[in-house]
Amino acid sequence: MALENNLKKTRKIIDRQILYFFPPKADKKNLLRILGKARYSYDEKSAGLALNEPIWDLLGRGGKRWRPALMLLCGEAFGANPKKLLPYSIIPEIIHNGTLMVDDVEDNSDLRRGKLTIHKIYGGDIAINAGNAMYYLPLKILLENPSKFSPKIINSAYSIYVQEMINLSYGQGFDILWHRGTNADISEDGYLQMCAFKTGTLARMAAKLGALFAGASQKNIELAGEFAESIGIAFQIQDDILNLTASEGYGKEIGGDISEGKRTLIVLRALKQLNPNQRQRLLFILNSHTKNQLIIGEAISLIRGTDALEYSGGKAKELVLNAWEKFSKVLPNSKAKKQLKEFADYLIERKI
Amino acid sequence: MALENNLKKTRKIIDRQILYFFPPKADKKNLLRILGKARYSYDEKSAGLALNEPIWDLLGRGGKRWRPALMLLCGEAFGANPKKLLPYSIIPEIIHNGTLMVDDVEDNSDLRRGKLTIHKIYGGDIAINAGNAMYYLPLKILLENPSKFSPKIINSAYSIYVQEMINLSYGQGFDILWHRGTNADISEDGYLQMCAFKTGTLARMAAKLGALFAGASQKNIELAGEFAESIGIAFQIQDDILNLTASEGYGKEIGGDISEGKRTLIVLRALKQLNPNQRQRLLFILNSHTKNQLIIGEAISLIRGTDALEYSGGKAKELVLNAWEKFSKVLPNSKAKKQLKEFADYLIERKI
Repeated sequence: MALENNLKKTRKIIDRQILYFFPPKADKKNLLRILGKARYSYDEKSAGLALNEPIWDLLGRGGKRWRPALMLLCGEAFGANPKKLLPYSIIPEIIHNGTLMVDDVEDNSDLRRGKLTIHKIYGGDIAINAGNAMYYLPLKILLENPSKFSPKIINSAYSIYVQEMINLSYGQGFDILWHRGTNADISEDGYLQMCAFKTGTLARMAAKLGALFAGASQKNIELAGEFAESIGIAFQIQDDILNLTASEGYGKEIGGDISEGKRTLIVLRALKQLNPNQRQRLLFILNSHTKNQLIIGEAISLIRGTDALEYSGGKAKELVLNAWEKFSKVLPNSKAKKQLKEFADYLIERKI
Repeated sequence: MALENNLKKTRKIIDRQILYFFPPKADKKNLLRILGKARYSYDEKSAGLALNEPIWDLLGRGGKRWRPALMLLCGEAFGANPKKLLPYSIIPEIIHNGTLMVDDVEDNSDLRRGKLTIHKIYGGDIAINAGNAMYYLPLKILLENPSKFSPKIINSAYSIYVQEMINLSYGQGFDILWHRGTNADISEDGYLQMCAFKTGTLARMAAKLGALFAGASQKNIELAGEFAESIGIAFQIQDDILNLTASEGYGKEIGGDISEGKRTLIVLRALKQLNPNQRQRLLFILNSHTKNQLIIGEAISLIRGTDALEYSGGKAKELVLNAWEKFSKVLPNSKAKKQLKEFADYLIERKI
């Protein structure tokens, strides 16, 4: 409970920071700050309609903001003052929201955080473009605060950004191919690698930036990254579990992963354990991309007939525990260290 | 002719550089270089299908490669050895190709460089994701060559990247809104600003990086950027002209801009000069997003009845000339300086 209250408080601070950094209104002053001086003139109304509005439509829907919280905790665990890191903490969060916006176009999803997806409201073109803008927008913080850190540290921050964004693209590429059913003969390792890249990368980015800005060594930055990546993978597995089992308060479509034909760890495990007829039926449903609730329900029943849900949940816990073992050894004892562990447990045990 | 031959030679060198940097094959060695060590394991086949193949399908179709050539010339004009800059010259080129891939999804275009667009072959999801990957992939060059330039210069390179990518997103946002017909009461200044952001930014990025890596002063880097931006705007205007007037060898659909409802400088000028009936008719055709060749031909006739094509062509030339006036003053006399001017003239007078 103490942790949840803490996270709630942090969330408020982060929300204020996002609002300060990227104001919803595309007025003269804000555009000057974001874009620099116009050579001709900015059409403020169009700027708002094309970028600020759709971006804020999504950002304003909330979210757990756990990536910024993770960055702050990692920084603090390595001795940094979280206040100094706060402006940078929104980098992975805004990028994350951008990926949600773009992924929803790619998957043609209907709902996001309990409301229509951005592309269903504003159109695919606006959603793709606004989502892409969110991939660079928050980096402007590195330009606006040139003096807080040395050029070498800022350089490393950019390097982390570039590598993680490339890996993210490959992770998303695997995911697209596989839930299409193309080349879908996936191993458990292949799936975990995809999660490491798709969900792990922004967590890695957050933790590595936190450690970097706190002045941690290259080796410790890597350990922070590996721990965060493990949380990311575990978070994704938990997300997959919730997609099939959640009820109240879940913002997405229940069984949406079945409609999308996703080969999650759960599905891979179930396919291994089902008899040939059941296996064929589950594959058929996954490849049909049905939105029929009855058929989706049938797929979930098939899965529930195996140990796939328990197995996946166990795998998620094991992953985080092992990474924590390694990471905790290099952290001095502190309140932040304790919170980091609680935080990881909280994320993988969440119910929504 | 000498310039054309030179550009052809440069193009070959740049093509080799692209091939070296991002090999078409997603094998173990290449993935290790691009992604780092796998935590679990990479599915090479899926990586190729999702990223390397679609990316190379587009890159392999050629293109003028004028952005890298511009970077090399700018660097040389400020005294740098172009060989030292060569690895970096592909940054704006790969990003540019990424924007083509993504824009084609946003505009739902059918053809690109005489062939089906990437999303028509591989699907929208793959095209968006692969196009996005191209926004970061080439930055890896800044990571792989950490020692060639000081951290301060590399930092400035990243800053240029971030700002231009943000501006690019706003430029594309304006363009999307306007060819949708949303908030389409555009001024000439508004259009030119959109071009400055949509087509000018990557040229700016190229020229500024060239000047930066050559050790030019901040003021001179800005002048290089402004000159390149002007070329970019003029290039876009020429592109708009060719879209309505080109015949042989033009890789895109003739009149495609009419189908897309684009408010180009030509259209804005024509709308001003047409009588109310003609004006209403042209607007109707633009907003109907027709692909009917007869109706598109009617729109082109209406435009040809005004001075819009000549006016726009004149504007393009004037823009480049004015920017050259300012830029040429800070450049010492050299072969590269002479080539820069010829290069600008060549780009805005091209017929395909």
